[in-house]
Amino acid sequence: MIEKEHIHSAFDRDLHNLQSSVMRMGGLVEASIINTSRALADNDEELARKIVDDDQLIDGLESEVNLAALELLALRQPIAQDLRFVFAVLKIATNLERIGDYSKNMAKRTTVLLKTPPPNGAVASIRRLSHSVQVLLKDSLDSFAERDAEKAREIIVRDRDIDLMYNSLFREFLTYMMEDPRSITPAMHLHFMAKNLERAGDHITSVSEQVIFQVTGEMPKDDRLVEDTTSYEAVSMGAVN
Amino acid sequence: MIEKEHIHSAFDRDLHNLQSSVMRMGGLVEASIINTSRALADNDEELARKIVDDDQLIDGLESEVNLAALELLALRQPIAQDLRFVFAVLKIATNLERIGDYSKNMAKRTTVLLKTPPPNGAVASIRRLSHSVQVLLKDSLDSFAERDAEKAREIIVRDRDIDLMYNSLFREFLTYMMEDPRSITPAMHLHFMAKNLERAGDHITSVSEQVIFQVTGEMPKDDRLVEDTTSYEAVSMGAVN
Repeated sequence: MIEKEHIHSAFDRDLHNLQSSVMRMGGLVEASIINTSRALADNDEELARKIVDDDQLIDGLESEVNLAALELLALRQPIAQDLRFVFAVLKIATNLERIGDYSKNMAKRTTVLLKTPPPNGAVASIRRLSHSVQVLLKDSLDSFAERDAEKAREIIVRDRDIDLMYNSLFREFLTYMMEDPRSITPAMHLHFMAKNLERAGDHITSVSEQVIFQVTGEMPKDDRLVEDTTSYEAVSMGAVN
Repeated sequence: MIEKEHIHSAFDRDLHNLQSSVMRMGGLVEASIINTSRALADNDEELARKIVDDDQLIDGLESEVNLAALELLALRQPIAQDLRFVFAVLKIATNLERIGDYSKNMAKRTTVLLKTPPPNGAVASIRRLSHSVQVLLKDSLDSFAERDAEKAREIIVRDRDIDLMYNSLFREFLTYMMEDPRSITPAMHLHFMAKNLERAGDHITSVSEQVIFQVTGEMPKDDRLVEDTTSYEAVSMGAVN
């Protein structure tokens, strides 16, 4: 019974509620990414507008999480791993809010692309990248819920694949633009959408870093921004051609 | 003497040190933005590489600030405005690190632009935007140091001008691309640089929001992402022409 009482202590309940709020926020962000990809594929303007509107829910939840974390710090004065947990929550909430913003930005671009349809195949490429990002986010949230530093480490490694996919898309979209000036406008939007997804991957990496810090007490070395080198080379190549 | 003792209490010293670290971090980020603009204007590859290297200092300082804040929370258990201060510091450090990343990304693009010079006038436009962002950052850091919520509010309003400048650049660069396919590659980099600056402005707004929250205890309503509408319209117009 003592153990049960411990589990249900007010402090643990607060920590648990905080975790639940972050997971809910993560779920909303994941749904936003999935729906954006769907709206793009189906030319669904109504869905795209809904995504833009629903981003307010994510922003609202971030404020709630921030305030709950502050309250917990003030009232419960957590230490050691519990303190790192609250710290991680504050940082993760910021990351999730940004990913939500990127998805919302993509949804806005989707509505513009209705008027200037992108080249064949380009949408499929974006959707593949979007799917990879969404799965990465899901796994990252799982590692947070399970406090699994090993899983979090794997996610950081997997973010490299996102960067490689982005570089390949960058090249693909540049080719469209060079071949046909009429594709410049839609391809610009696709470029920014791809970049949004690549940056979402960076934020997922940040989430994973927080999970590692929370569990182990040590922050992994930040080598996120190795990413972009290839796309710079791609551009140089494009210029030579 | 009691007042003097109070000012020099260990707790106040910790708070003061934390503020100093954030201000130093902000100074490094500001220098990074200024230098990136200079490297672009002078085709200075060496300076651009230095900016990329120096971003590690900013990242390192963010880790230091995070750990110092955590330590302060654990040891001093601040409440009320002091707690909000530490909370603001954690959020602001994240924002500054991101702005540093954007500047580093711009520096990388600058080295690529050496091989594919951008259209006349385009560099001047980017530099104007960069200067506005740098001044906004400086004022935002001042509002943090002075705990001046009124000044912070003005910054949020001024970020709208950054968004308008960005929209105008977006149109300008799109025109270059449409007129001459050879300018597509450099103009793509300029697009991303402009977008980096526009996003830096968003992060400066976040810093100001944290200052307001810290001073007043109330978070201002987030209407940052009104920004992008005009540039979507610009693109649609581009497509019609």
